[in-house]
Amino acid sequence: MTPERLSRIRSVLDQRQPDLTVITEEVQKGRNLSAIIRTCDAVGIPEVHSVVPREGFTSYNGTAASAHKWVDIHHYSTALEPITALTQQGYQIVAAHVDRNAKDFREIDYTKPTALLMGAEIWGVSEPARELVTHTIHLPMVGMIESYNVSVACAGILLEAQRQRQEKGLYSGPRLNKDRYDALFFRWAHP
Amino acid sequence: MTPERLSRIRSVLDQRQPDLTVITEEVQKGRNLSAIIRTCDAVGIPEVHSVVPREGFTSYNGTAASAHKWVDIHHYSTALEPITALTQQGYQIVAAHVDRNAKDFREIDYTKPTALLMGAEIWGVSEPARELVTHTIHLPMVGMIESYNVSVACAGILLEAQRQRQEKGLYSGPRLNKDRYDALFFRWAHP
Ligand SMILES: C[S@@+](CC[C@H](N)C(=O)[O-])C[C@H]1O[C@@H](n2cnc3c(N)ncnc32)[C@H](O)[C@@H]1O
Ligand SMILES: C[S@@+](CC[C@H](N)C(=O)[O-])C[C@H]1O[C@@H](n2cnc3c(N)ncnc32)[C@H](O)[C@@H]1O
Repeated sequence: MTPERLSRIRSVLDQRQPDLTVITEEVQKGRNLSAIIRTCDAVGIPEVHSVVPREGFTSYNGTAASAHKWVDIHHYSTALEPITALTQQGYQIVAAHVDRNAKDFREIDYTKPTALLMGAEIWGVSEPARELVTHTIHLPMVGMIESYNVSVACAGILLEAQRQRQEKGLYSGPRLNKDRYDALFFRWAHP
Repeated sequence: MTPERLSRIRSVLDQRQPDLTVITEEVQKGRNLSAIIRTCDAVGIPEVHSVVPREGFTSYNGTAASAHKWVDIHHYSTALEPITALTQQGYQIVAAHVDRNAKDFREIDYTKPTALLMGAEIWGVSEPARELVTHTIHLPMVGMIESYNVSVACAGILLEAQRQRQEKGLYSGPRLNKDRYDALFFRWAHP
């Protein structure tokens, strides 16, 4: 491992946001999930909570698959599990839902501990899950098609979260606790 | 055609932005191009300029393909053609490129006539094309992976363009010229 590589790993770990995460509820296409994970890595999200679709994931082996190495993924059978657990840990749960009456996505304060809930390609976020969330948000659209691709919608929201956190200085010093930081450093630096 | 459908078509045409467009330079995966077109529809972009990859597009038949109905696509063999033509029409050409030294994407004024140039999955924006552009921009990333998926990067930038244009009132009244408006209305309302 070169010194450049080690310093790159440190710089990435220094900017990881332990209090920002994504829950995917039955997002089914492997390539959409991989694109979401790639975006999570890019904005500093260390772990993702993924509810396994009833019919299983469609497989995918593209470039984005390599992002799985840098973001930890936890699997669940329903969205209620991660929503309940994260709510107990003090997170606001923000559901992205195709609903013009929902809040505009830029109105949310993403500098708070936040879990962003994204819905399935076909069904969207389930009703039982929506009943448990803190906020429901939407991205305004002015076209004929009624929704964004799920990985596109997720990125739109996460870039806003990144902007707010940048402005508030949340990328300016290590925020992972020491044990977590060291464990990740060990894993990434000694493959 | 129901009255609701007709009034939806009018509302979409009323918000089309004739002076905002995207050029894709050899974006090869059909699903990426389709996701880009779906996002264009969503932010009100009426046409896209697509440079055909040397090895052809990989085919794609997903949901997003239906967006092709609402956005016109022009094909070219090199990026120089649409860049030159749009420059002559007074557009600024903004290349999205994976380069930390490029301007932050939020620094650009997207309320001016703007063509956003997106690069190929593997090669990015070509050097000859980069020499012809007005600005080169990047989306800051803090992760291990070096780039975003091209449709994700495109959406990140277009949502910022939409935000700026909303703020400036560019979605508040019809901006297509009458002939164009009527031709699209006729086509969409009489399938
Ligand atoms: C393709 S959409 C689901 C469409 C589904 N027919 C519906 O109406 O819920 C997949 C997911 O992407 C997200 N999404 C897509 N477009 C969105 C928008 N405009 N606002 C908020 N979330 C959106 C949501 O999380 C949604 O569940
Ligand atoms: C997968 S990237 C290309 C990666 C290629 N290896 C390179 O370095 O150019 C495909 C396209 O997405 C856009 N893109 C991806 N990430 C970007 C970023 N962080 N900033 C600006 N554009 C980006 C650019 O248009 C790029 O050409």
